[in-house]
Amino acid sequence: MKRSLLPLIRKIRLAVFDFDGVFTDNRVIVSDDGKESVVCCRSDGYGLRRLESAGVRPLILSTEPSRVVLQRARKLKVECLHGIADKFTELRRLARRARIDMREIAYVGNDINDAECLKAVGLPVVVHDAWPEVRPLAKWVLARDGGRGAVREFADEVWEARRSSHG
Amino acid sequence: MKRSLLPLIRKIRLAVFDFDGVFTDNRVIVSDDGKESVVCCRSDGYGLRRLESAGVRPLILSTEPSRVVLQRARKLKVECLHGIADKFTELRRLARRARIDMREIAYVGNDINDAECLKAVGLPVVVHDAWPEVRPLAKWVLARDGGRGAVREFADEVWEARRSSHG
Amino acid sequence: MKRSLLPLIRKIRLAVFDFDGVFTDNRVIVSDDGKESVVCCRSDGYGLRRLESAGVRPLILSTEPSRVVLQRARKLKVECLHGIADKFTELRRLARRARIDMREIAYVGNDINDAECLKAVGLPVVVHDAWPEVRPLAKWVLARDGGRGAVREFADEVWEARRSSHG
Amino acid sequence: MKRSLLPLIRKIRLAVFDFDGVFTDNRVIVSDDGKESVVCCRSDGYGLRRLESAGVRPLILSTEPSRVVLQRARKLKVECLHGIADKFTELRRLARRARIDMREIAYVGNDINDAECLKAVGLPVVVHDAWPEVRPLAKWVLARDGGRGAVREFADEVWEARRSSHG
Repeated sequence: MKRSLLPLIRKIRLAVFDFDGVFTDNRVIVSDDGKESVVCCRSDGYGLRRLESAGVRPLILSTEPSRVVLQRARKLKVECLHGIADKFTELRRLARRARIDMREIAYVGNDINDAECLKAVGLPVVVHDAWPEVRPLAKWVLARDGGRGAVREFADEVWEARRSSHG
Repeated sequence: MKRSLLPLIRKIRLAVFDFDGVFTDNRVIVSDDGKESVVCCRSDGYGLRRLESAGVRPLILSTEPSRVVLQRARKLKVECLHGIADKFTELRRLARRARIDMREIAYVGNDINDAECLKAVGLPVVVHDAWPEVRPLAKWVLARDGGRGAVREFADEVWEARRSSHG
Repeated sequence: MKRSLLPLIRKIRLAVFDFDGVFTDNRVIVSDDGKESVVCCRSDGYGLRRLESAGVRPLILSTEPSRVVLQRARKLKVECLHGIADKFTELRRLARRARIDMREIAYVGNDINDAECLKAVGLPVVVHDAWPEVRPLAKWVLARDGGRGAVREFADEVWEARRSSHG
Repeated sequence: MKRSLLPLIRKIRLAVFDFDGVFTDNRVIVSDDGKESVVCCRSDGYGLRRLESAGVRPLILSTEPSRVVLQRARKLKVECLHGIADKFTELRRLARRARIDMREIAYVGNDINDAECLKAVGLPVVVHDAWPEVRPLAKWVLARDGGRGAVREFADEVWEARRSSHG
């Protein structure tokens, strides 16, 4: 993480995460009876707790209609909106309702359906293996891939940056 | 992708995909009660929509009798023929019925049972990790492995090439 | 494969495979209800058919009691003995019953419980990612890892070697 | 493994393992009906038997409440305590009850919730892909990643070291 990001990080109050490709490695396991599963990182939960302790509210915003997003969100005890076709409109509505300025939001994504949100927020972030189309939209490219600790890396850095700002 | 492929790409009307090793990483998860699952890439669906918007019809043609192919095809909203022992005969029948010339077809494969189809079509394509026996049959070797965004990469390039051709 | 192996390959009539670590990547998926699954390579089946067409009988010999071995063997249409604590004794019994000399057997393994069998057969083979303890026992170290096409690689080479021997 | 570790290894009587990230690759498969699965290495079981034959008692100590830990422990025939929020307090209680000194314990971990245990024991060990926060706490960093044979590597080295000490 570049030190020039610190002022942006210290401003954020809400961290919005895409699910597939951020909490997961962007793959889906499909079984012959139509069940879907995804592969997540055990260490991400600890990161979410650190975000909260640093005064940043985490939230998952997913286009996918699959119930698998809800299952993971419940286990991680994090707010979740799924099956959202237009993520940008939803993000604006959320921000307005919570009286949070777009500059106070971090958005972590990986693919083209994250583009509008990445362009709109104060701290646009992508995982290391994000698609080439959205990489240029990010101010912060994480060192880790989605589902391989990217959420934890983001949370640890935010937690550290905000702790040291009070030092 | 080499620029010399552009004229071939602009000609195609039908894109036929093998399933295992193209939409998947060529592996199968087998459970102790005999259920089969495969691992697919979440970003491929967006690629299929781009193909359609560029006027190219996508279709899956699989030798595998497993129902897992159908489950994935249904989710991706793409036509699918599975359990096809002789893919080349089926491909010719398809083309004749739809009045599509073999030169207007792209075929994306990875293994020896794709060989005849690759030899017959106008745009033969293989994934990066295709078996050595079929690699020489391709005019286009994708940069991505099967199940790791190969379908999306193919679709993005076709979509881009056909868009710029109208520019 | 070294050319010096060709005489050994041309002699074999029976190819015995360990399952875990050879047909799989040596990992097991364990679910919270105790179900076990393994990850196999779709291309191995084609390799087994080539072995048979080259006059070599394939057979799986596994220590694991899990039913997952049987499920995969049934799908691949290959003989299978599982839950075999002492593989070497079983291998000798098999050979005697089928009147096959140990020098006419290839054994493909990856771990310490394959050591005795590897020492006894004419063509001892290990996958690329075999454990360091058994690697020195092999005359042929495959280029591919278990579950990543190792069986197919073995079968293709045997098939090719025996075809050319009739040329 | 550094030779300077040999005296520490020869002293241990109890080997305590974290589960997620040590027996597994630190990932969890989540299905759309909320089932959790993890991916383990088939070769670890053989390592546990070697530990026992070398007079070292293996034990799993996990924070995770998921039943998947129990399923794997049962299959591997190893003692297991799961759903333990405060692992350090539990470890001390265990040691006192079994009259084992902290210097006679090896602890194998990968993440921040292992920190206190790693600091307290005689032989603190981490897997190769442990989180940066806990790596400095280890006297021994394994060459293998969690779920990729790390437990087997640890067990093989301990078994070897204690065998040669009697030589």
